[in-house]
Amino acid sequence: MKYKTLILPTKTRLNDVCSPMCHELIDTYCQPVWNYLDHDLTSQEVINLVEDVDIILTSWGSPVIHEEVLLRAKRLKAIAHAAGSVKQLVPRSAFEHGIVVFSAAPRIAQSVGEYCLAALLNLMNRFKDLDQNVRTYRWKEKGVRRNELAHKRIGLVSASSTARAFLQFLKPFHCEVIVYDPYLHDEEARELGVSKGTLEEIFACDVISLHAPSIPETKYLITGDLLKSIPEGAIFINSSRTTILDEHLLIKELQTGRFYAALDVYETEPLLDCHPFVSMNNVLLTPHVAGDTVEGHQDLMYEVLKDVIGYLEGEQPKYALNPEKWDTMA
Amino acid sequence: MKYKTLILPTKTRLNDVCSPMCHELIDTYCQPVWNYLDHDLTSQEVINLVEDVDIILTSWGSPVIHEEVLLRAKRLKAIAHAAGSVKQLVPRSAFEHGIVVFSAAPRIAQSVGEYCLAALLNLMNRFKDLDQNVRTYRWKEKGVRRNELAHKRIGLVSASSTARAFLQFLKPFHCEVIVYDPYLHDEEARELGVSKGTLEEIFACDVISLHAPSIPETKYLITGDLLKSIPEGAIFINSSRTTILDEHLLIKELQTGRFYAALDVYETEPLLDCHPFVSMNNVLLTPHVAGDTVEGHQDLMYEVLKDVIGYLEGEQPKYALNPEKWDTMA
Repeated sequence: MKYKTLILPTKTRLNDVCSPMCHELIDTYCQPVWNYLDHDLTSQEVINLVEDVDIILTSWGSPVIHEEVLLRAKRLKAIAHAAGSVKQLVPRSAFEHGIVVFSAAPRIAQSVGEYCLAALLNLMNRFKDLDQNVRTYRWKEKGVRRNELAHKRIGLVSASSTARAFLQFLKPFHCEVIVYDPYLHDEEARELGVSKGTLEEIFACDVISLHAPSIPETKYLITGDLLKSIPEGAIFINSSRTTILDEHLLIKELQTGRFYAALDVYETEPLLDCHPFVSMNNVLLTPHVAGDTVEGHQDLMYEVLKDVIGYLEGEQPKYALNPEKWDTMA
Repeated sequence: MKYKTLILPTKTRLNDVCSPMCHELIDTYCQPVWNYLDHDLTSQEVINLVEDVDIILTSWGSPVIHEEVLLRAKRLKAIAHAAGSVKQLVPRSAFEHGIVVFSAAPRIAQSVGEYCLAALLNLMNRFKDLDQNVRTYRWKEKGVRRNELAHKRIGLVSASSTARAFLQFLKPFHCEVIVYDPYLHDEEARELGVSKGTLEEIFACDVISLHAPSIPETKYLITGDLLKSIPEGAIFINSSRTTILDEHLLIKELQTGRFYAALDVYETEPLLDCHPFVSMNNVLLTPHVAGDTVEGHQDLMYEVLKDVIGYLEGEQPKYALNPEKWDTMA
């Protein structure tokens, strides 16, 4: 027996998130209901399709799954999101209906981890200046020298999945890592090889990286005083969300030129004309792509669907959410 | 009893390679003879100073240590080079005189390893294009997407110390690594977690990195046919020397725009005016600084001197050369 599976992403989105390997998986285990339209369905259209469906697969652009869907879909066992944040997509009541919600966020976190290490090394190695100097025949300009990452002090705000992905790539550099996270237990910190610290201790490190989710509790968590305390020559990385700080205060501190920053997220996206960031030489700017890689996206649907099928056949799932995770995640 | 130590680097060079910790080490174990001049000594001046010297410390700019020095320096036990290549500095006959030659090359290799990973991630993450796009309000331009390093196929030419440093930083990415090195034993390859391959196999990889020394046997080791075989979208890294390939052939292949390159070394340095590299968008250029970091240089003299003292007190040295290493090193 195959699982009747409602696959909501459009063909264009499937090209991005559903690999040939995922198509094979669908062929083997699913009786698929595809979205043949060239646009996303409405929430109402989904309600009309779910009656005898076992699995719903979603991704970016998929319509909100209303409570009504959960009531109507008597056979529904799993909703699997081939993307990151699932909180705005599926109601928390899914847990009460016995429907398991899967999110590919941990796979996306791998891409974010690579972004964090890459951005950090980019700034430590002064690649922009060095490349520009060679191209303008200034060769070894004084004052432009590389720094090593090995043995530096790294401060992480939150021990989220992106922070853990970053951590694994930092291992060979033997850095001293301090994490601020009210939900991190001592035992878990030991297992991760990090020590717990206050936000003040995090902001005194050589490298400061934000990984906190955008939830009411983290709004303006990073105060102006913390930003003011970032040391000379430090590197500040924001691959999470901007709601946890006041962008104007960050701009003010960056304008001193005292430290470097890698920024992937902004208060307004895309950046507005004449934004102060675009004329700064001490920042590396990327257009909200820390979680976006060709390989990462190609894996998304395969990873969650494989996990759903494993779960339905009695295995322990890897990407399933539980109420505890739900409340502290983005 | 303290070791009489002739310290050849000038004050300016010492600021770069001799840390406060190294000065303490000298205070504790050595009776130093400093170079108080603001320029490097001549080889002849060195001869006049070595009669009762136990250790000679050298670095970039130090004069050649002639055979005559070895004959005159009856108490000389060690020559330690707080820099990389020692072959042009000290005659091979030092081995016959029972003098042990130390080189800080393995410490420099750590900086090269960081360069290789940083340059590779820089190109895979398309940082130059992404940063430029954000600054010119093109935001998420089509065709500019990041790639992940995880699970890629990496080909290394030579298993030298720089290749090994690179390898250690690649560990968390679970790449498949193939090495071409006629001196690498199967047992050692297994220990390094790599497999041995031909140059043709190396040049079919996603990432190709050169680590071979500049010795007569490696001249033009990388043929035009190998360069022609570099696959679409691959990344080519040269942090070693240019004598192992014909730069004109590399330029020709790069001009196809088919692959990316991180180049730190060039046939003529600094680059000549109007060099084709400076107008290429698919290359990351750095001015021969793969081995140069602030922290790496600060460690150099401390690392070799500590090793010399350990050796003189009966410990196993880490930076000492032997005739076998000598003949295959740069």
